[in-house]
Amino acid sequence: MMIPPAVNLGIDIRVLAEADGMAAQLAASQVGDYRDAETVLAFAENVDVITFDHEHVPQEILRQLVDRGVRVHPGPDALLYAQDKLLMRQKLTDLGLPVPTWARVRTEDELQTFLDDNGGRAVLKTPRGGYDGKGVRVVSAGHEASDWFAAVAETGANDGLLVEELVEFRRELAQLAARRPSGELVFWPVVESVQRDGVCAEVIAPAPGSAGRVADVAAGIAGQLASGLGITGVFAVELFETTDDRLLVNELAMRPHNSGHWTQDGSTTSQFEQHLRAVLDLPLGATGTREPHTVMVNILGGPSEGALADRYADAMAMHPTVKIHNYGKDPRPGRKVGHVNASGTELDDVVYQARAAAAFFQD
Amino acid sequence: MMIPPAVNLGIDIRVLAEADGMAAQLAASQVGDYRDAETVLAFAENVDVITFDHEHVPQEILRQLVDRGVRVHPGPDALLYAQDKLLMRQKLTDLGLPVPTWARVRTEDELQTFLDDNGGRAVLKTPRGGYDGKGVRVVSAGHEASDWFAAVAETGANDGLLVEELVEFRRELAQLAARRPSGELVFWPVVESVQRDGVCAEVIAPAPGSAGRVADVAAGIAGQLASGLGITGVFAVELFETTDDRLLVNELAMRPHNSGHWTQDGSTTSQFEQHLRAVLDLPLGATGTREPHTVMVNILGGPSEGALADRYADAMAMHPTVKIHNYGKDPRPGRKVGHVNASGTELDDVVYQARAAAAFFQD
Repeated sequence: MMIPPAVNLGIDIRVLAEADGMAAQLAASQVGDYRDAETVLAFAENVDVITFDHEHVPQEILRQLVDRGVRVHPGPDALLYAQDKLLMRQKLTDLGLPVPTWARVRTEDELQTFLDDNGGRAVLKTPRGGYDGKGVRVVSAGHEASDWFAAVAETGANDGLLVEELVEFRRELAQLAARRPSGELVFWPVVESVQRDGVCAEVIAPAPGSAGRVADVAAGIAGQLASGLGITGVFAVELFETTDDRLLVNELAMRPHNSGHWTQDGSTTSQFEQHLRAVLDLPLGATGTREPHTVMVNILGGPSEGALADRYADAMAMHPTVKIHNYGKDPRPGRKVGHVNASGTELDDVVYQARAAAAFFQD
Repeated sequence: MMIPPAVNLGIDIRVLAEADGMAAQLAASQVGDYRDAETVLAFAENVDVITFDHEHVPQEILRQLVDRGVRVHPGPDALLYAQDKLLMRQKLTDLGLPVPTWARVRTEDELQTFLDDNGGRAVLKTPRGGYDGKGVRVVSAGHEASDWFAAVAETGANDGLLVEELVEFRRELAQLAARRPSGELVFWPVVESVQRDGVCAEVIAPAPGSAGRVADVAAGIAGQLASGLGITGVFAVELFETTDDRLLVNELAMRPHNSGHWTQDGSTTSQFEQHLRAVLDLPLGATGTREPHTVMVNILGGPSEGALADRYADAMAMHPTVKIHNYGKDPRPGRKVGHVNASGTELDDVVYQARAAAAFFQD
């Protein structure tokens, strides 16, 4: 999704891509494995700046890139926190940012103690590699995590697992922001992120009723995070709005994020254009909304037979104002294969348009 | 500029490109000559639908494509009128559409007679190959065109030249529209096109004061043209608004057009997305404005040294709401190498933003 703004701005973009998806159609693309140092280092020789659309590139490779003088944004020191949830929780705590009560647990007994102290149920997370609800489990007894403890013990380091209180929240919010290496920092309006089965189902931008205190607190947290962690590029802070009106940091994504897909059609500057500007250290674009409300609905799984495109005729005929985004990926159950954005002045209608259009693409 | 919407919609786009420009970066691109039948026919074997971003593909090639069962939009019967200004004038006259007084002239004497009958000055045009003010000359005596008469006489056919009255116009307008093979037809708001030295310098969308009669007449003309000529895809009708309040058809472009570049950022559906939808016979997108006013300013020639991108930092810092489009072409005097779009609620400010941002890219 960074290709369209790169084409518009005349930026010569090169992609180290997995074979699947549209990116591999760029002549400048190379199909290869981001975990292979030789591949990444060779690829980096022909670019001025390197960035990633996920946080999983190994630290050793990131640091080799920096050592060779490649501009890497976000840099390895910042990405470390997005790669390891335990490091992130510790850093947020050190920065004095509001987080759920948490602990590092290495044994069933330690987990049981945490449960006993925190209402008998908690959220257990693997520090690395989780996304979209993977690597997250709600537990109410220490022995329910015996498999995960065994797995982390096998790694040798045995860094343990992250356990967090089960936060009583009203809703989930996300604060999208961008920061340049030279320090300029901009925020989009805070959004509401509606989750189903641990996966983002839809995003309402701005979050209803967020103007004023909520927007102020959310931007304040994101700003502290950005400077405290030295983030460059676009990043998203996922927040819990608790039933007692606090905002707690849930997760941190150090890249353009699903909660920011609404900006492609709903904001003056999309998160993908902004990320390109930020990593190139160009002045950041305006982050205002084009229309009072924009709603993004994810397309999950997709049609079991045939391509998404087979559903275009009906969806387009019924919803001429809705913008359809199709990632060109093979549908698999639960896989995000596209999304739609709807914008307008009446929130109820915008939600309806987005959901109804997306429904054409789901079985 | 069709690549970004193709990526968004997951449309597998393939480009037969000249070497210069971003399009050649697509892996699916082929560099070749559109005037070479073998090249075009071979390219067409791997696509479902074929379209063009100019009108100069020879009729013989277009007809061979159709004969082989390739869907070509717009088709050769329609494109013929965009390729030959004399045929177009005759067809518009047959359809009863308002055009400047015109004649086909084959000799200096015939031209002189037209001049004597029409106020002593007139616009002379070569029927084929002209664009951006090329192939257009204002004359006040028959002998001023001796070179052109000699040139058309040499072609053998001697179809002559097109002469038109010098219209007293208040301003130039353009009506952008799109039509599907199955007949659906949509119009964007009519725009004002400001020309300098025969080249479009800026576009104001919608044209100030055009709501009501002007918009109605302009759309009516475009609608008659579309069905009368069997146009498919996006097309633009350039119009004179005369000092006595008539609209006359000036030129016809049967493709996405410079007068429609404002739609990339100012309309719910850009002309490039719409063209893809139209030629694929998909339902057309909404053509409303995102903000009350959008102004497009062309970047002509560009910086004499260094790339457009060297000017980004200043332009972006001063104009964070302006959208910059860079075609990635080498600058040459008078060549269109990019454009900017500004949108907002106050027209005076929007014009200022667009002009001021574009000025950073011009020497």
